[in-house]
Amino acid sequence: MVFADSSALRIPPLGRRLRLGFVGGGRGGLVGNWHFAGARLSNHWEVVAGALSSRPEVAAASARDWCIAPDRSYTHYREMAACEAARPDGIEAVSICTPNDSHAGIAACFLRAGIDVILDKPMTTTVADARMLVALRAETGVSLTMTYPFAQHAMVRQASALIEEGAIGQLRQVQMEYFQDWNQGGQPEESPIWRQDPARVGRSSIVGDIGTHALHLLQAMTGRDVVSLRADMFTCGAPKPQPDTAHVSLRLDNGAPGLLHLCNAAPGQFCALRVRVWGSGGALEWDQETPERLRYVPRDAEEHIFVRGGGQGIRPDAARISHLPRGHGEALSDAWANLYAEAGLAVAARRHGVALAPGTLRHLPGAIEGLRGMLFTDACADSYEAGGTWVTLASATAPVPPA
Amino acid sequence: MVFADSSALRIPPLGRRLRLGFVGGGRGGLVGNWHFAGARLSNHWEVVAGALSSRPEVAAASARDWCIAPDRSYTHYREMAACEAARPDGIEAVSICTPNDSHAGIAACFLRAGIDVILDKPMTTTVADARMLVALRAETGVSLTMTYPFAQHAMVRQASALIEEGAIGQLRQVQMEYFQDWNQGGQPEESPIWRQDPARVGRSSIVGDIGTHALHLLQAMTGRDVVSLRADMFTCGAPKPQPDTAHVSLRLDNGAPGLLHLCNAAPGQFCALRVRVWGSGGALEWDQETPERLRYVPRDAEEHIFVRGGGQGIRPDAARISHLPRGHGEALSDAWANLYAEAGLAVAARRHGVALAPGTLRHLPGAIEGLRGMLFTDACADSYEAGGTWVTLASATAPVPPA
Amino acid sequence: MVFADSSALRIPPLGRRLRLGFVGGGRGGLVGNWHFAGARLSNHWEVVAGALSSRPEVAAASARDWCIAPDRSYTHYREMAACEAARPDGIEAVSICTPNDSHAGIAACFLRAGIDVILDKPMTTTVADARMLVALRAETGVSLTMTYPFAQHAMVRQASALIEEGAIGQLRQVQMEYFQDWNQGGQPEESPIWRQDPARVGRSSIVGDIGTHALHLLQAMTGRDVVSLRADMFTCGAPKPQPDTAHVSLRLDNGAPGLLHLCNAAPGQFCALRVRVWGSGGALEWDQETPERLRYVPRDAEEHIFVRGGGQGIRPDAARISHLPRGHGEALSDAWANLYAEAGLAVAARRHGVALAPGTLRHLPGAIEGLRGMLFTDACADSYEAGGTWVTLASATAPVPPA
Amino acid sequence: MVFADSSALRIPPLGRRLRLGFVGGGRGGLVGNWHFAGARLSNHWEVVAGALSSRPEVAAASARDWCIAPDRSYTHYREMAACEAARPDGIEAVSICTPNDSHAGIAACFLRAGIDVILDKPMTTTVADARMLVALRAETGVSLTMTYPFAQHAMVRQASALIEEGAIGQLRQVQMEYFQDWNQGGQPEESPIWRQDPARVGRSSIVGDIGTHALHLLQAMTGRDVVSLRADMFTCGAPKPQPDTAHVSLRLDNGAPGLLHLCNAAPGQFCALRVRVWGSGGALEWDQETPERLRYVPRDAEEHIFVRGGGQGIRPDAARISHLPRGHGEALSDAWANLYAEAGLAVAARRHGVALAPGTLRHLPGAIEGLRGMLFTDACADSYEAGGTWVTLASATAPVPPA
Repeated sequence: MVFADSSALRIPPLGRRLRLGFVGGGRGGLVGNWHFAGARLSNHWEVVAGALSSRPEVAAASARDWCIAPDRSYTHYREMAACEAARPDGIEAVSICTPNDSHAGIAACFLRAGIDVILDKPMTTTVADARMLVALRAETGVSLTMTYPFAQHAMVRQASALIEEGAIGQLRQVQMEYFQDWNQGGQPEESPIWRQDPARVGRSSIVGDIGTHALHLLQAMTGRDVVSLRADMFTCGAPKPQPDTAHVSLRLDNGAPGLLHLCNAAPGQFCALRVRVWGSGGALEWDQETPERLRYVPRDAEEHIFVRGGGQGIRPDAARISHLPRGHGEALSDAWANLYAEAGLAVAARRHGVALAPGTLRHLPGAIEGLRGMLFTDACADSYEAGGTWVTLASATAPVPPA
Repeated sequence: MVFADSSALRIPPLGRRLRLGFVGGGRGGLVGNWHFAGARLSNHWEVVAGALSSRPEVAAASARDWCIAPDRSYTHYREMAACEAARPDGIEAVSICTPNDSHAGIAACFLRAGIDVILDKPMTTTVADARMLVALRAETGVSLTMTYPFAQHAMVRQASALIEEGAIGQLRQVQMEYFQDWNQGGQPEESPIWRQDPARVGRSSIVGDIGTHALHLLQAMTGRDVVSLRADMFTCGAPKPQPDTAHVSLRLDNGAPGLLHLCNAAPGQFCALRVRVWGSGGALEWDQETPERLRYVPRDAEEHIFVRGGGQGIRPDAARISHLPRGHGEALSDAWANLYAEAGLAVAARRHGVALAPGTLRHLPGAIEGLRGMLFTDACADSYEAGGTWVTLASATAPVPPA
Repeated sequence: MVFADSSALRIPPLGRRLRLGFVGGGRGGLVGNWHFAGARLSNHWEVVAGALSSRPEVAAASARDWCIAPDRSYTHYREMAACEAARPDGIEAVSICTPNDSHAGIAACFLRAGIDVILDKPMTTTVADARMLVALRAETGVSLTMTYPFAQHAMVRQASALIEEGAIGQLRQVQMEYFQDWNQGGQPEESPIWRQDPARVGRSSIVGDIGTHALHLLQAMTGRDVVSLRADMFTCGAPKPQPDTAHVSLRLDNGAPGLLHLCNAAPGQFCALRVRVWGSGGALEWDQETPERLRYVPRDAEEHIFVRGGGQGIRPDAARISHLPRGHGEALSDAWANLYAEAGLAVAARRHGVALAPGTLRHLPGAIEGLRGMLFTDACADSYEAGGTWVTLASATAPVPPA
Repeated sequence: MVFADSSALRIPPLGRRLRLGFVGGGRGGLVGNWHFAGARLSNHWEVVAGALSSRPEVAAASARDWCIAPDRSYTHYREMAACEAARPDGIEAVSICTPNDSHAGIAACFLRAGIDVILDKPMTTTVADARMLVALRAETGVSLTMTYPFAQHAMVRQASALIEEGAIGQLRQVQMEYFQDWNQGGQPEESPIWRQDPARVGRSSIVGDIGTHALHLLQAMTGRDVVSLRADMFTCGAPKPQPDTAHVSLRLDNGAPGLLHLCNAAPGQFCALRVRVWGSGGALEWDQETPERLRYVPRDAEEHIFVRGGGQGIRPDAARISHLPRGHGEALSDAWANLYAEAGLAVAARRHGVALAPGTLRHLPGAIEGLRGMLFTDACADSYEAGGTWVTLASATAPVPPA
């Protein structure tokens, strides 16, 4: 039996890389490049096939960019799923980087083909579709990874470990914000049109697009779930009909309140995902734009700053996904690489029986995390449409209630 | 006629300092020291009388600390008002630093005695009392300054000037937070008991105590008023019955939304008053804990950082209240000194006919700003008690509607 | 006997303020305003006399600005010393804010008149003059305070206390820089002409003006003296003949090396006095422009940030000179106030027998610190003139060797 | 003819990746992982061969880690050079990550075999060896890239473009520091023994190891060369005989002075490479640990902060090597990827006739930059050994003077 040395995350346990295909992600999109960078930097994957665009000439050019052989550049994902499943050297997983409304169909197709799935967020555009994928994943036994990259930073794991240790005592309150600036109007070229088309992005563009990142980060860091919320939404600059701003008050499963502020029309804000967690014993703060540092203020002591990469106070879960020494910066591509490395371990374990130490994949977001994002998005939309009333969320892990 | 040279704010126009008395502010309190420091640093005032505590021995010891002659150390403010009004060298103004519920009575007493008033926030504990003071101030013609010190930082005036110039275009959204850490429980000594006693602080301790600071800063910086709001409140650690946390969604008078987050039980947060103002043309951000710097991001250009004290881009309104060169830090006592200097000009103008250039005092908070704070506090309490519904604020400047 | 409560630094022990005069410091200068602000904010002093300018009309106008009675506004310091010494209510101390070359004569005049001296740095323009003042101070018994304000910040005292405790182990290396931007040329109005006139500022303008601040900060923080040095100097923009830049390699009395970089023609640098102290057990870093925070990195642990004002880890020596709670910023005027408060205690002790707890004034810079600055300035000039050779410094505390 | 689209740096122009081998870099070393990450993330290279360690079992295990086929894992670099040069699918370039003293021999071997060379710094351990490589490179026509990664950050290119435009006017002064903390003693495991062995690292470990990085960054950013210097060195904690600290005064080719401070025994400093460039028209500052931001202070305006990734003021040379939007952080692996991408273009151009736009490779460090580092290291050692005298550097581009 092959063992994965999870302390050396950028080493594929099989002595070879896994074969990966892409659906979407070709020229003109942002997201595909991040997946691709993470896959390559992780050293666990070789990208060998793709249906990179629905436009054949873009698909072909994009395949050439990524050094995919022309005979494995497809024009439709169904063709790709069928052909690759039939090849002895077919892809072992697929990364799906298409617009939201196509996620459910594509993911289902590959799950049914027995090909492991790596799926960009949000999972789907409806809760029903998300539940369908959760069920299908369980039924097929194939792995499904949701790509929430921000929680894959070492300092988020450090925060998670500190909270588990009790470093902040009892969790009392959380505050999160996620601001971007691309949706201020007058810049139609900065974003694909579908990101502002309600039919394609789901009921709440702002929550589905960036709110789900914040939700996942909150859950990954604190282990807590959101049980109810109220949401106000506003349009403060965005040219399209969907709100660009949300104020969401949260109630966590231990009763603690939270506040989440979302905006994608925020001048001077770039990818401003920030979290503060306050407890009876102290505070933790992390900012995606300075991911190497974690601020920790114990209740009765001076501030502490943990810096990724040193032995100094860094917990094993964080050290395990740290690749460069302190001061030698890791950033977003490294977080993506951590995600793709763990996805690689998941696939190596499932397909090839590689043995993983217990807990190796406990931070890897899967189908339940995807569903949770959809339940959250739906609840925000429900609350907003009802004038900002408090709405209770269904649990992502409980049995589905009969209709 | 004497002219005040408003470009040299720390120079009293009469060639002598004005005579100031204090009610409250003696040993054991925090706030009095700030007023006193501002008064002395401003060079406009000499503190010559006081009723510094209701306990005679504390009053006497406190008077000695501040070098007040024993015969002008009083044990009751009414005695002080009467005696000082009768002296040819009596005080020309009084600073009131007592618990909230006594503000209305004390301020009214001095207004009626013809002594100018400098009043700590919040103005009163009820809107009715605040309206009474507004009316009494108008009737007596005496000046009343509310001590909102944070807006007296040069970089807040810089922000205000930039917004007036159109540097951020149309105001689209504001975000504010004010966090402190003194109310986490287990530290009864850190705050006087009255600050947590609803009977003495008013309907909402958290809003009245720190929310009014944020509201004033918002109005001073943007010139905008809040017309409606909804508030949720929570208790996240505070040992006393009043909530320690508020989430307040705002609607400004131009329709723009805002979000205000208040907490005085926030571990790792000290005096964290921060504001972000976003417009169609860019963003401004300011943080009370780093008051010398103002972040400005124009819509289509790189970030700019204005630093107090230089000629570089600093607008006249900000330069006028800047005393040290760039890098030679000013901080909270300087802001208090700016407030006390302008209050001194107001009193010199009213009592001694000193001529002020137009607009000299346009940033000095007065009775209307005090009333506004009470209307805001009340509206937050109303909304919270009604389960977080939207509540419309009365205008502080409109005629009072008949009951 | 009156006792000074050194835990309440802004309370004058006599129940009255001490009477202070100024020589220099009138309109048109920078430095006088800082002294004046410190004196007033400290609450230990009342400014009652002055020879504020050698130009009578400036002297008179300046006296009015500071509310000095016309009959105590003098046109020459000798007249002031004589008249004030003769008055029963004469000044108890004098602050000297004149150009460097006049320091020795003025200070000597007041020392001989039995009036305590508060002297701006650098002490003199020659070592001989400095030794004369040291001897005269000893002979007269009058106190002499040198105004090095930067070491009077609470967080510098915190650093000093930490080093004494052994928090950084054995001191191995120091690095300091002090940069300003006023001497880049093309801005003649920004600085009085005498600051660039070698005859008036001494042998090395750049070292005497800002290098002595750095030296004092080093000694105050570490308790270490400089025993030898080498200096290179350069002119990188300054319009006047004196160098605007110095690179100084230091050897401390425990053998540790140091590096000091000085420049007053540094674009983008305002009052950039920064120090790093490295030892076998960790590092301390402090920056005058963010004086409320002290970075401490123990050898084998995460970074710590001490913030002035909290109980959290703040040592008594730092807490004693802290006046506002955490987050309520203190800055340069507060440091000046700390200096003036301690100078007030020194004068109250000497003149009025006020009893001070042992060590109360151990951080107050006096004549020896002034002489040390002159020895340092001279050694830098010697080294520079000799082409950058290593030069040994005479000790400021050893007996003067025979000529 | 194939054209490289240099605006899309992570796209290999041939539609396939180039074949790369490694000498050194196997398990137990740091540097190999950085090269490997850069090569993979760049998307220009496939690592297909290696002589990864002189210990056969380490070589084999390391090859497996990197998915190198066993038959292309060699035990000696000479064997690798010979075999690979003979294969039709042999490596097109080699990355050399061995201890310094082996660089010259290994690089010469591959240059002679016609295999392009990517060489870790410092180039060699002697100037003579460096000149030999410069000559051999010229003679063979093979490309040689020196891996100075820090100058490959987009914001360094932004600084370079701004300086070329005249944004800081005439260069007047530079200041650089590079601090690390691994050599404080008591941590033998943190660094391979050879890094402290004078026979293997060259005449000055501290200058060769980190000083050459600073020198290259200075030249890349300013276009200026160092013409003379003086160096003091000290041992402040390092357990081994070589100094751990250097103070280097520089004179640039336009007469401007500079100061470089190096230390690898600096507690609390991680990879602290910082540069400040001061000119008659303003200042630029950059810090390797926050590589996404560039501080620019024009002479007469407020501070500007350029942030990588936006259109806002980012110059084409910087935009070309920027892959993620603003706020989506790039860090050290991205800089390595930029270096490997440009090295890939160099090899594609030389071997396969790919046409590059003029100037595409003007920032790619080559043999001259390597020689410059050795001349600098030698001059520092000469100066130090002579007691810190000024030493003139030979030019890296001038003909070698006869011995």
